[in-house]
Amino acid sequence: MISEQAKQELAAVLGPDYVKDDPQTLVTHSYDGTPMLQSLPDAVVYPENTEQVSQTLKVLHKHRIPLVSRGSGTNLCGGTVPVQGGVVMVMHRMNRILEVDLENLTATVQPGLNTKQFITHVEELGLFYPPDPSSMAVSTIGGNIAECSGGLRGLKYGTTKDYVIGLEAVLANGDILRTGGKLMKDVAGYDLTKLLVGSEGTLAVITEATLKLIPPPKFKKTMIAMYKDLHGAARTVSKIIEARIIPATLEIMDNPTIRVVDDFAKLGLPRDMEAILLIEQDGDPAAVERDIERIESICRGESADRVEVAATPEEALKLMTARRSAFTALARLRPTTILEDATVPRSKIAEMVLEINRIAAKHNVQIATFGHAGDGNLHPTATTDARDQDEVHRVEAAFEEIFEAAIRLGGTITGEHGVGLVKAPFLEWKVGAAGMEMMRGIKQAFDPHNLLNPGKMFAKATRKRVVIDRG
Amino acid sequence: MISEQAKQELAAVLGPDYVKDDPQTLVTHSYDGTPMLQSLPDAVVYPENTEQVSQTLKVLHKHRIPLVSRGSGTNLCGGTVPVQGGVVMVMHRMNRILEVDLENLTATVQPGLNTKQFITHVEELGLFYPPDPSSMAVSTIGGNIAECSGGLRGLKYGTTKDYVIGLEAVLANGDILRTGGKLMKDVAGYDLTKLLVGSEGTLAVITEATLKLIPPPKFKKTMIAMYKDLHGAARTVSKIIEARIIPATLEIMDNPTIRVVDDFAKLGLPRDMEAILLIEQDGDPAAVERDIERIESICRGESADRVEVAATPEEALKLMTARRSAFTALARLRPTTILEDATVPRSKIAEMVLEINRIAAKHNVQIATFGHAGDGNLHPTATTDARDQDEVHRVEAAFEEIFEAAIRLGGTITGEHGVGLVKAPFLEWKVGAAGMEMMRGIKQAFDPHNLLNPGKMFAKATRKRVVIDRG
Repeated sequence: MISEQAKQELAAVLGPDYVKDDPQTLVTHSYDGTPMLQSLPDAVVYPENTEQVSQTLKVLHKHRIPLVSRGSGTNLCGGTVPVQGGVVMVMHRMNRILEVDLENLTATVQPGLNTKQFITHVEELGLFYPPDPSSMAVSTIGGNIAECSGGLRGLKYGTTKDYVIGLEAVLANGDILRTGGKLMKDVAGYDLTKLLVGSEGTLAVITEATLKLIPPPKFKKTMIAMYKDLHGAARTVSKIIEARIIPATLEIMDNPTIRVVDDFAKLGLPRDMEAILLIEQDGDPAAVERDIERIESICRGESADRVEVAATPEEALKLMTARRSAFTALARLRPTTILEDATVPRSKIAEMVLEINRIAAKHNVQIATFGHAGDGNLHPTATTDARDQDEVHRVEAAFEEIFEAAIRLGGTITGEHGVGLVKAPFLEWKVGAAGMEMMRGIKQAFDPHNLLNPGKMFAKATRKRVVIDRG
Repeated sequence: MISEQAKQELAAVLGPDYVKDDPQTLVTHSYDGTPMLQSLPDAVVYPENTEQVSQTLKVLHKHRIPLVSRGSGTNLCGGTVPVQGGVVMVMHRMNRILEVDLENLTATVQPGLNTKQFITHVEELGLFYPPDPSSMAVSTIGGNIAECSGGLRGLKYGTTKDYVIGLEAVLANGDILRTGGKLMKDVAGYDLTKLLVGSEGTLAVITEATLKLIPPPKFKKTMIAMYKDLHGAARTVSKIIEARIIPATLEIMDNPTIRVVDDFAKLGLPRDMEAILLIEQDGDPAAVERDIERIESICRGESADRVEVAATPEEALKLMTARRSAFTALARLRPTTILEDATVPRSKIAEMVLEINRIAAKHNVQIATFGHAGDGNLHPTATTDARDQDEVHRVEAAFEEIFEAAIRLGGTITGEHGVGLVKAPFLEWKVGAAGMEMMRGIKQAFDPHNLLNPGKMFAKATRKRVVIDRG
């Protein structure tokens, strides 16, 4: 609960219209893109500028009130659920592109800016901002920075981290921190910029970001390869990389995903295939043509049943639609969809998909897998029903084993979705006791009273690891 | 001073041959690549593996003995001078390439590995590791990671940070930390990997690194453009970037550098030019030819006096030799050479070079400037004589003003050399009081007894800023 005194102070900072605690507003901000998680905040605030964010944090700091800052809440890790109540700060009013600097190829933006709108804007200027999380039509740049969002182009172009070169952020005590700048090289002290990217709102509230832009590729080509044997698809992924080709996109869909997507999008996908690869290459026309030819030949060499190269942009769009609609299609199957994020070295894709299938069968749950094969970032997706407690428990047990399997294969519990609430109990599996201790120390340095997004990333208890008995 | 007891414990961990405290060894490890800094350690140790590093740190932790870990000591910021005595740990015995993984395009190496040797090895395998600090013939990968080394290819390919995807490191208490992995995406908690890169040995001792490799460019072309007007050269830099071309290399040398390099290397450089740009583009042949043609036309449009494109690899090598010999040539002029690292947004190159010249004249010191124009990373280099105290003070005063000017132009005090001892008094100018406080908190979390490279990055006092009076 927030005292009347604190609410008055917040209203004085933000204006009375921008501090809300009516039931509708509280409910609307009690959940995010993650299923089965909900917790009411005590108030919701809407700052207009950095100064208001700073003053708001000073009020919250004085009264020791927790804060969850958020954009559109599209995250899938419970990252913006206000589990300890307090204030939710919505960044949507701070949504401006402050500058696109054509001499330095940088953009300076506010955190509430919509990702897709930003990408479109820079494309119209003949520039390119590669991070393309699937949520980009709704998500904000600030949210992308908080979660270090990836996307389909991560393989070749990297993720949000690779494009954030400067930040302005407000610390827990209201102080304003500025890091980096329009600089391609800066080694003045510890890299606080990269530390804040992916820190999930637990270290500071990002109020401004300077982003690196790059020249866009001149040409793009799209192809699809279909396999009756999952291993053939996985070997293709490895062989492409081994051939020193880094495609712009290299996506995989397994058989359950293929069937669901075909039901949904009526694309005439072959329902008897074990796996489909969707591949895009971009760059200079000659290089793209050569790469696509070589990839085609690798696919055939690994016994692809069918290989099709899109002849027109429309055909290419149709192919990519298949992949981009995977989540939506899966979400239609059952009332609850849980999209996970286990990631492995790309050479371990086949092993991981087989492990996922084995684990799903063992626990009698439905899990379809698709994802970014080229960077090993898989999205095993369970379709279930939150009202069926027994099934939900089986799904949870399955995902625990999936995380365990990913780590056993040299992977991680999350490639691009973040830790948040959902994966906090598993973080120590990846980073170890020493890693947890250092992360707790960093959190303590930035936020000694644990006011910024409390309850995220650091779980009260680490899950006991599943005992693997392969008899 | 180290107690006999501690020495015996170290000898028990490392073997008696690998703990040295004879005067020769101590003197040899009392300095690094930075002029005018020297401080004797109490002992020098040479671990063979991670376990020995861990055990050594446990001994030092118990006795509260400071540790400076180092590779070849080529850094230019006093980063490995043992200013508080204690133990210097030389990583040269841990110099193996543990694995090059052709399926995942990663290499796993030990920190004492020579940079050039590593680059050559991966090139022989048809792969590419871009970071190319000028010291690479001598430097180690561990040193490059500690300092986040850049180099000539930073503009297009990024710096060491962009290629380190996993680390094993030993913490101050001897615990072993493992971060990242063979993963192109990993958002499990705070990014400790990127935090350790560039942390200058103040947070942990790096014992193993997993590095990302990329396919090499297929073709390269080199050109030179000469200007009687510095602004023409600077505008050329901006225009190239504005034309959406990111060259592999885009270097600048000012007139004092040109004359010195020509004296040294007898390349027949035009001594009356105010600036030379050295430009390389790499990639697919057609794209390279097209870019070089457009760059040539931009150079001529900005009144370049002469533009020459190397017709053969030998000619290209000769051009690049001019740039690569700049430091060596300058170092012949006077007994002491101080190479600095002020960095600005690339659109501010001309302004910054003019500021440097103005400041050098004001303080009556000789400063030549060359560097990585494409990423704004300049190396103003003072030639002086350490025995002339008055002149050295004037040089120091000049560099203080140069740092101030860089920051005023939106730049930083160091682009790729690190903070170390030399720039510690200026760090707060760049990162502010809030940044210093967060960095101190991180240091405290990792190294509560201040044993790892003490005295570096955090100065006892921040320099008062020069008052700029422009009347």
